[in-house]
Amino acid sequence: MNVWKIVGCVFGGSLILAIGLLIGHFGISKTSTPSWAQDLSKNVDEAFIREFMNEVNRDNIRENLRKLSQYPHMATTKGDEDTVQMVLGQWNDPHIGLDEAKEERYDVYLSFPRAENPNNVQVVSPNGGRPFQSQLTETDITDDQRDPNVVKPYAAYSPSGNVQGKLVYANQGKMSDFETLSHFMNLTGTIAIVRYGGAGRSAKAINAAKFGVVGLIVYTDPKDINDGITDESKTYPNSWYMPPSGVERGSYTESFGDLLTPYYPAKNFTYRIDENNIQGRPPIPTQPIGFGDAEKLICQLDGLAANSSWQGALNCTYNIGPGFRTNGNFSGSDVHVNVYNYEEIRSSANVMGIIRGSVEPDRYILYGNHRDSWVHGAIDPSSGTAVMLEITKILGTKVKEGKWRPRRTIIFGSWGAEEFGLIGSTEFAEDYYSKLRDRTAAYINVDISVFANATLRAQGTPPVQNVIFTAAKQVETPVSPSLSVYDNWIRYFNRTSSIYGGLVPQLGTLGAGSDYAPFLQYLGISCMDIAYTYDRAVARTAGNVLLRLADSLILPLGPRDYVETLENYYDTAEKAFSNRLSEKSISLGKESKMISMPLRVRMINDQLMLVERAFINHFAFPDKLYYSHVIWASRSSGVITFPGIADAYAKAVSTELKADWDQVHHHITVVATAVDNAASTLQTAASI
Amino acid sequence: MNVWKIVGCVFGGSLILAIGLLIGHFGISKTSTPSWAQDLSKNVDEAFIREFMNEVNRDNIRENLRKLSQYPHMATTKGDEDTVQMVLGQWNDPHIGLDEAKEERYDVYLSFPRAENPNNVQVVSPNGGRPFQSQLTETDITDDQRDPNVVKPYAAYSPSGNVQGKLVYANQGKMSDFETLSHFMNLTGTIAIVRYGGAGRSAKAINAAKFGVVGLIVYTDPKDINDGITDESKTYPNSWYMPPSGVERGSYTESFGDLLTPYYPAKNFTYRIDENNIQGRPPIPTQPIGFGDAEKLICQLDGLAANSSWQGALNCTYNIGPGFRTNGNFSGSDVHVNVYNYEEIRSSANVMGIIRGSVEPDRYILYGNHRDSWVHGAIDPSSGTAVMLEITKILGTKVKEGKWRPRRTIIFGSWGAEEFGLIGSTEFAEDYYSKLRDRTAAYINVDISVFANATLRAQGTPPVQNVIFTAAKQVETPVSPSLSVYDNWIRYFNRTSSIYGGLVPQLGTLGAGSDYAPFLQYLGISCMDIAYTYDRAVARTAGNVLLRLADSLILPLGPRDYVETLENYYDTAEKAFSNRLSEKSISLGKESKMISMPLRVRMINDQLMLVERAFINHFAFPDKLYYSHVIWASRSSGVITFPGIADAYAKAVSTELKADWDQVHHHITVVATAVDNAASTLQTAASI
Repeated sequence: MNVWKIVGCVFGGSLILAIGLLIGHFGISKTSTPSWAQDLSKNVDEAFIREFMNEVNRDNIRENLRKLSQYPHMATTKGDEDTVQMVLGQWNDPHIGLDEAKEERYDVYLSFPRAENPNNVQVVSPNGGRPFQSQLTETDITDDQRDPNVVKPYAAYSPSGNVQGKLVYANQGKMSDFETLSHFMNLTGTIAIVRYGGAGRSAKAINAAKFGVVGLIVYTDPKDINDGITDESKTYPNSWYMPPSGVERGSYTESFGDLLTPYYPAKNFTYRIDENNIQGRPPIPTQPIGFGDAEKLICQLDGLAANSSWQGALNCTYNIGPGFRTNGNFSGSDVHVNVYNYEEIRSSANVMGIIRGSVEPDRYILYGNHRDSWVHGAIDPSSGTAVMLEITKILGTKVKEGKWRPRRTIIFGSWGAEEFGLIGSTEFAEDYYSKLRDRTAAYINVDISVFANATLRAQGTPPVQNVIFTAAKQVETPVSPSLSVYDNWIRYFNRTSSIYGGLVPQLGTLGAGSDYAPFLQYLGISCMDIAYTYDRAVARTAGNVLLRLADSLILPLGPRDYVETLENYYDTAEKAFSNRLSEKSISLGKESKMISMPLRVRMINDQLMLVERAFINHFAFPDKLYYSHVIWASRSSGVITFPGIADAYAKAVSTELKADWDQVHHHITVVATAVDNAASTLQTAASI
Repeated sequence: MNVWKIVGCVFGGSLILAIGLLIGHFGISKTSTPSWAQDLSKNVDEAFIREFMNEVNRDNIRENLRKLSQYPHMATTKGDEDTVQMVLGQWNDPHIGLDEAKEERYDVYLSFPRAENPNNVQVVSPNGGRPFQSQLTETDITDDQRDPNVVKPYAAYSPSGNVQGKLVYANQGKMSDFETLSHFMNLTGTIAIVRYGGAGRSAKAINAAKFGVVGLIVYTDPKDINDGITDESKTYPNSWYMPPSGVERGSYTESFGDLLTPYYPAKNFTYRIDENNIQGRPPIPTQPIGFGDAEKLICQLDGLAANSSWQGALNCTYNIGPGFRTNGNFSGSDVHVNVYNYEEIRSSANVMGIIRGSVEPDRYILYGNHRDSWVHGAIDPSSGTAVMLEITKILGTKVKEGKWRPRRTIIFGSWGAEEFGLIGSTEFAEDYYSKLRDRTAAYINVDISVFANATLRAQGTPPVQNVIFTAAKQVETPVSPSLSVYDNWIRYFNRTSSIYGGLVPQLGTLGAGSDYAPFLQYLGISCMDIAYTYDRAVARTAGNVLLRLADSLILPLGPRDYVETLENYYDTAEKAFSNRLSEKSISLGKESKMISMPLRVRMINDQLMLVERAFINHFAFPDKLYYSHVIWASRSSGVITFPGIADAYAKAVSTELKADWDQVHHHITVVATAVDNAASTLQTAASI
């Protein structure tokens, strides 16, 4: 009861303001029931949600996907510009389009390989022969791969260079991997080959360079992606597994956004930092290759056999090197890495589409996905874009027909240059920083709509989990109408929740893997990322979530769900750190922080919307300013708790310096202050 | 018309939400005019404002002032704690008190002189004699000055130390002053005497140390404060002019807030930085003296006569030294500065009082003043506190009698430890950062209510000027009922405004001189500081402003008034900088920034409230993070325009380094982005 009284009280303010204004302006009589009250009172319409879900059409999604993935559409290429026009065309269509759609362009710093001089890895024998060269591009398996616009394999933002040395196998290229290797050999002047995973792409090269490694080769081990399958006859096109010649392209950068304009939109007037001052890109030439080529190199390595945790699924024992074994083809040979990348400032477009809110036009629900791919991008990102276009077609048609208009404004974003480091979405977040921070209730990201597991895969911050649960319960699985997406999901991923009083599906946590990162990590907006094996189920689930967020009278966000995460984090920190902390007379201060949070939650939309913002602290991590979210910022430590505390603790334990223990204490203050602020945001409004 | 349509549209959302909730909860019929609509529709009540102004009682204010200034009440002393109880007692009074009042305590780092070993300045003759010692405390002129709790003169946060050297006169202690002096002598090992003004207190000592000066003496020149009057017979108690023995105490720090806990509230759990890492305090012993003592030293100086702009009102020509003239009493003598300060962490209280808003309890109007003084503080701050207590008594009584309740929540703050660097207000701003940032509409500061000029002296950001004009027109001057405060004000300070279409009073700009600084510079809240010669006129004006902000249906803030300031700043920057900038191919980019701002202003409260926040950029000034306001941050350059651009330009011109010109370009980006964000906040809501 008390909560509802408060709700009534708070909103009364705007209520009568609007009454005053509307009466004044439209001359509505005070004594009859105003008809606009009916219009304005609309809440989520369950019938409309069902109607929407019924209208989701698999054939439309397939046709969207076919068009989107017909040609390679790497950021800023002609293929990309064609998809700009395709999205813009639909969103501006008078019958099925949105209220407003436009391009927004930024001049961004991109990295490309030279088509005429492809990057490669060679084995150089003592006599100067070249007994091996990596494939310059993937084996042509289907017609579309013969398109001359398929970009050759490269590591974006790797420096150019031609380097040579003995080969070593360095597992995943983590700091600890190179440390381990360095006990067995001097790494100076070597070339390291590492598999994807464990550390970020760029981190592998930065770590390697610290140990004197002069060049880096990266490949995708079949253990990590193909369920261990390496046999060509069992990979694409005979299955969906990656073939031996397939190469994972990627952006080798540690942060996100345009590298020359950190914190500001990359407009023509914007100041650009010197290229030499870019942080977090590889210091040494780096090149990705397929596992077929990797096998030829790794299986010839000399030296000790690597630890079992370092072994992958290639058909041999992985030795660590250095150099090749004497009884093989490459005896005495070096490895040579040739990288011919170049950088260029290019104009990249976001396409923005808007459905204006009828009641709260100044509250935004964002729904986005990037548009650019590395090659044809049938899965990443076009499966997500195909879904977004089907959602906008259905909703746009309803709007054009006058049958529906959301309570809040919906902003759709088709981001550019995501593959180069979430550039389009980050520039947008920088460009509209204040407005988005003050007005955005939630961001929904649907990047890859088709994924390995035959179940929903949802990631998000705690406040969004409940609305995803609600939607997932209403969507049928493609396999059976009697099995809901929720029931299927909970089979694969689940946890016991004290708040929900039982088993619930387990949401994944968000890092910086797709375009939600600037909204979550930099602006502090509640975010989610939704994927599923079947496009249609994603369209229905994501659309359902979108409609609930856009139309609900009270926002369906549950900040109370943060309590479980925070309690877990405090418990973990206590178990992992408290002995050493009490030695240092530092207290985690958990009790004082948590008491008031769950008890007096007021379900008021602005509070619901803004509680996530309370976790933003732009001073928390001076060396990674984009990661300003005290709970979800990136973390190096393996202890899953507050990232600042965990990383500072790991450092302090290793150095035992007073200054580093002070940093632990500092990060405890950062967390305590953020949690206090979040709790304070949810307490009685007329109080401090 | 368009604006009002949008207004109606935006607020309709909350409107019907509240309708739904209230109907649901209270069971009010839909077909009759709900009675709560009348309650909730209240706007500013002009009759109530008149009633309030009529009830302001000069005798009450005088009695408040008498009690508050009866004893010295330096921060955290018994005298201060007594005023805590006095304020708390009134605000908790069941008949004249507020809805809620409480102490909020922070453990803050303060600096004090040793009572048993007073700081002093001596002249040491070549034979070891001491022909001069500065007064250890002011001459007792009235009984209350004999109170043993009067703190002896000192420079808070000056390090302890005993240093000796030849005396030099360094004008105001600006960098340029020491540079000038250094053309005539080697300053290493000297003691410098400087007058207040021109540079911050701490800056004088920091500048001096850069030139090798080992000790600093500071005094208040009668030219700067006494209209040049030095004669004891014409100073207090014979007039209100400062007597020769009067010493200005002050905090010698460059930033504000508790020095050991930057950016976080100084609670018991908070991490504290090492004292050696404190930034911006004097590196050399520093001591303030009265102008009587200063005269004895300066009028004996040897060396060249200082430039006319360096001459003050003491009865001699100011020479620059070094050392004393040979034909005087101090021939061949050094000056010795003895400082015995110590630092201590003490518990300092803010007293917070709340009147809950009836309609928008989650929107705050803040009204504050500090409570601590250096000595008795009859003017600074007790004149302001006396006014605040009279305002809270009148409004509290109305609330207790059920006759009035504001639309929005009013939060009164009686801040502690302001004299030590705005500590109480800053810790409060840090403690409630998110909540205050998201919900505060404006902050009113009334520190010194009695000031030199017989007119209103108001400072503020552009959005608050209009509401001060409105209030000032309704208040009579103490001298004549037919002359309004506004009419009197415009005689003294005025400017021509294109927006207002004629002459308007000139508001001063805000720096960091009182407790508004954390709210303006760190949180980006629209702020004002109001003073007047007569207490009663301040109470009426400030109270009138407070009531308008708290009760108006639409907030009486005018962000449109920012346009004039921004245009001035751009014009100034263009005149001062554009030649050199175009040489460097850097554009100020003015045109593109300004076009959209004034045209589509929507007078919506949240937009009105949040536009100031768009100027906050926590990355703009990495070496002064508290100054995050892109327009009002501190500025060293004499060119009155955007501080970041002006200071970066000054540096670039002096060094001609590319890196420094790059910084100019960077700061232009900072400003352009902030202005874009402010404009964007004011544009159509359902758009990006």
